[in-house]
Amino acid sequence: MTRLYNEPTDFADEATDGFVAANKRWVRKVHGGVVRSTASTPGSVAVVIGGGSGHYPAFGGLVGQGLAHGAALGNLFASPSWQQVRSVSKSANNGGGVLLSYGNYAGDVLNFDRAQEKLRAEGIPTQTVTITDDVASASKDEKHKRRGIAGDLTVFKVASAASDAGYDLDQVVAVAQKANERTRSFGVAFTGCSLPGADEPLFTVPEGRMAVGLGIHGEPGISETDIPTANGLAELFVDTLLAELPDGVEQAAGQRVAVILNGLGSVKYEELFVVYAKIDQLLTEKGIEIVEPEVGELVTSFDMAGASLTLFWLDDELEGFWSAPCDAPAYKKGAVAEVAGAADIHDEDDFAAAIPDSSPESREAAALVVTALEAIKGTIDENADELGRIDAVAGDGDHGIGMQRGVHAAVDAARDASGKGAGAETVLNLAGDAWSDRAGGTSGALWGSALAAVGAALTDTEPASRHRIAEGVASAKSEILDFGATVGDKTMVDVLVPFSDTLTERIDAGDTLVDAWKAAADVATAAADATKDLLPKMGRARPHAEKSLGTPDAGAVSLALITQTIAGVLADARS
Amino acid sequence: MTRLYNEPTDFADEATDGFVAANKRWVRKVHGGVVRSTASTPGSVAVVIGGGSGHYPAFGGLVGQGLAHGAALGNLFASPSWQQVRSVSKSANNGGGVLLSYGNYAGDVLNFDRAQEKLRAEGIPTQTVTITDDVASASKDEKHKRRGIAGDLTVFKVASAASDAGYDLDQVVAVAQKANERTRSFGVAFTGCSLPGADEPLFTVPEGRMAVGLGIHGEPGISETDIPTANGLAELFVDTLLAELPDGVEQAAGQRVAVILNGLGSVKYEELFVVYAKIDQLLTEKGIEIVEPEVGELVTSFDMAGASLTLFWLDDELEGFWSAPCDAPAYKKGAVAEVAGAADIHDEDDFAAAIPDSSPESREAAALVVTALEAIKGTIDENADELGRIDAVAGDGDHGIGMQRGVHAAVDAARDASGKGAGAETVLNLAGDAWSDRAGGTSGALWGSALAAVGAALTDTEPASRHRIAEGVASAKSEILDFGATVGDKTMVDVLVPFSDTLTERIDAGDTLVDAWKAAADVATAAADATKDLLPKMGRARPHAEKSLGTPDAGAVSLALITQTIAGVLADARS
Repeated sequence: MTRLYNEPTDFADEATDGFVAANKRWVRKVHGGVVRSTASTPGSVAVVIGGGSGHYPAFGGLVGQGLAHGAALGNLFASPSWQQVRSVSKSANNGGGVLLSYGNYAGDVLNFDRAQEKLRAEGIPTQTVTITDDVASASKDEKHKRRGIAGDLTVFKVASAASDAGYDLDQVVAVAQKANERTRSFGVAFTGCSLPGADEPLFTVPEGRMAVGLGIHGEPGISETDIPTANGLAELFVDTLLAELPDGVEQAAGQRVAVILNGLGSVKYEELFVVYAKIDQLLTEKGIEIVEPEVGELVTSFDMAGASLTLFWLDDELEGFWSAPCDAPAYKKGAVAEVAGAADIHDEDDFAAAIPDSSPESREAAALVVTALEAIKGTIDENADELGRIDAVAGDGDHGIGMQRGVHAAVDAARDASGKGAGAETVLNLAGDAWSDRAGGTSGALWGSALAAVGAALTDTEPASRHRIAEGVASAKSEILDFGATVGDKTMVDVLVPFSDTLTERIDAGDTLVDAWKAAADVATAAADATKDLLPKMGRARPHAEKSLGTPDAGAVSLALITQTIAGVLADARS
Repeated sequence: MTRLYNEPTDFADEATDGFVAANKRWVRKVHGGVVRSTASTPGSVAVVIGGGSGHYPAFGGLVGQGLAHGAALGNLFASPSWQQVRSVSKSANNGGGVLLSYGNYAGDVLNFDRAQEKLRAEGIPTQTVTITDDVASASKDEKHKRRGIAGDLTVFKVASAASDAGYDLDQVVAVAQKANERTRSFGVAFTGCSLPGADEPLFTVPEGRMAVGLGIHGEPGISETDIPTANGLAELFVDTLLAELPDGVEQAAGQRVAVILNGLGSVKYEELFVVYAKIDQLLTEKGIEIVEPEVGELVTSFDMAGASLTLFWLDDELEGFWSAPCDAPAYKKGAVAEVAGAADIHDEDDFAAAIPDSSPESREAAALVVTALEAIKGTIDENADELGRIDAVAGDGDHGIGMQRGVHAAVDAARDASGKGAGAETVLNLAGDAWSDRAGGTSGALWGSALAAVGAALTDTEPASRHRIAEGVASAKSEILDFGATVGDKTMVDVLVPFSDTLTERIDAGDTLVDAWKAAADVATAAADATKDLLPKMGRARPHAEKSLGTPDAGAVSLALITQTIAGVLADARS
């Protein structure tokens, strides 16, 4: 379990600070993560990686000459926000475009995709290769749905080496895609891990048992068995991975393969070596040539006891890039040529937006938005512990903390913008940006999008009519449905859809805003309560998701609470 | 806990096999451990390190260009045998002499000192620097009694770099001594670790509590407190280490210091970084210049949850060597120059001894020695589990396994030597050698010495008279008393002294060998039983040594069992 921390909410930020302090020779802190502190070749492709914290050396430990150019570092087990990804990418950019590469998880896809849009809109050519090496997470036919685990390293390594070799963005993308296609991993776990401040582990495996195929955040595995001998585990690993050769590899014999035996935290080096002794023997017996193997901790999950095997099926091009020198805080190979000078310091203040002109009516609406956000902040602060408790039943228990981080940042940004004379659209936009940036993860991105969608309907110039408000909520609904959840999946969508539909219906029927909103909020509250009868279907579901029957979804509950809070603000404003 | 193993007795050997298989680019296996697989400069000093297994990357992971030349790898938490140290040293020797360097533990001192004697006798100049960085283990006045923990790395690193720089043996010794004098560490622990196959952890710390100053094998600490915040731990570490500046360092401000924040196994990287953020701040506030810090796992204790801070007070010479490039499996720094060619393969068969001439009487005595060793093997096999159980009360529970490994090897060696016509002295000598080599640790070295001492009294030519036998046992007693234990320390000495004294007394009084031995063996049995009223005083005593009250010492019990077994063999031989 995690024992050493100060405030749990500060853990990820403080870990980044300490990481940077200890590794100034390689990395420099920027908004959202780290970039190389050494200079990169002008015009070369920047490989930007990232993900949640808790997986060190992934992701910050893999930034340095010959490896990644930057890493966006999210909260614990939560995706970095798109703003973090964008910021790190802009700082890492050397003029040759950006490759975003990361493990395939819903929250990360959401945020990295959004960052990619933004970067392209700013004229920075950007491409993405998600990593899908975990064979336990989906069938071969649906390889694109698989999770990324220790195979992250092979893709990051060869893509970065290709950039160093002068490949352009399309060529680096092709190498990264080929590497991902030729990388297969399979893992097991013996225990869960506890996040800072948590009383209970995130998930548990019964003593003496082994969860087969379990993900690095406790995502469901394939089965559970007794813990085998070290040799038995080696056989399970090798048999499973040899049962699925990548396209283009006809047979195992005669192939050259990079091998990674990865420890997840508290399966220690000596145990890994005992297992590796057998893996080496088994692969050699099959006629496989092992190339520069790695046995150690490369993608961890705090102190989770577990291990995974990765096979990376090389061709000449990939082998050259796998073997190329690199020098990062936690991964070093061969002799890297001396680098002349430090990296350019990119301007980190280029994200301050100008405040567009606004009408007096819109500024009045903006003031009400600030009041509403302040009220929401009060509600969330009051309910944070309870939201965390509900979330911990089937999730990672950080919903309360995430909402707090988000709404606090949103209030600060909204006050600041409103004080500078911004209209409702700009205030909601900047508040949404701040929410998403500070909260990160899936929920942060959704709330950021929702606020921006409402803002777009209100505009900076028109009066905030009840019809525009209903349209804004409906537009936020569409935006969030686009992320893939549907009603019945036990998410905030179960509340948002009936809330928005009722609001539109009542306003179309001629109700006042106050009455319509209150009616819709009551529907939302009932809908949130009803999620207790549902099973979660998307995102990082936990192995024992059925435990959540009887408990509502935390995201649904917080949305319902927020609609009720706004109902109160609107009623007060009328009186 | 350790979950992945095959046979617990094979664990350390299999871990070494896997380690070598994964790291052929750096290391090659030899009898007793590993040496560099790359060539070293002819005539340079060989830095040979080592210790028990279970501390990876110490010790094998620290062998490679710019770091150690070889590492002797013992059993789990047990010293390598002197034969292992000698073998690794001979393979690592480049003609410039050998520096032996290791953490200061009784078993290691015993075996490395013996190896040093042997190497010197073979004409290889050999010196020793033991590492004594753990301030919690003795006062500054008794620094020579302190244990070695994560400070191992600083001494190994600078000694190796000095060798690379062309320093001769005396100069390398001077650098290593200065580095040890200027290195201070302090550690804490939250949980113990379990050895392969053990049902219980080696020691425990109550949940939510922290053992302050606990050693890496569970040796007693200074105190126990509630677990502080990360910042609180940083303050404890820094305050403790700044309270004792090394000689020659007048004040902390203005000093340049290499900093190592070491994780012992399952305190993970993010936690270490959170603690390091504060350490960096505190040291900087004191005006200390931090030079190339390391935050990670460098000297572990399986999956023990714990951490230590090391400060290495640099001068110009030490800083140059600390910063010098190196390339080992688990520790890499800067760009190491390409090495031309692989290491010479030293002959590993040069340890086969010639059999000296012997008399028929001595060959007859030798045959009886073989019979006695076979009977002892039977006794030990029968009692191994019980001996392990007794040892686990206050020790690490491996006494049964160690005795089995030792006596099995001794019987094989004795049969072989006797079959080749060796006399009693040579048979006992070779049996003792094999016992010590295979068993390792303190007990292996003691039994090896005891057998050799008895052999020396018997000679290869004289008849094995009862007086010679009593003299041999008395000589074994003196040899073992030289290692430092006295009667009352709850060790085998509590049995050996009254056994030897009674044997001598009865034989001097005219008893037959059979009667005298039986009488002495009965005294031994009573003495072994009486150790249950004693507290352990030397060696790697555990924090809760008082738990052992009511249980006899395992080494005392096995010696008493062996004296009774021999009494039976002698009675049979007479009849």
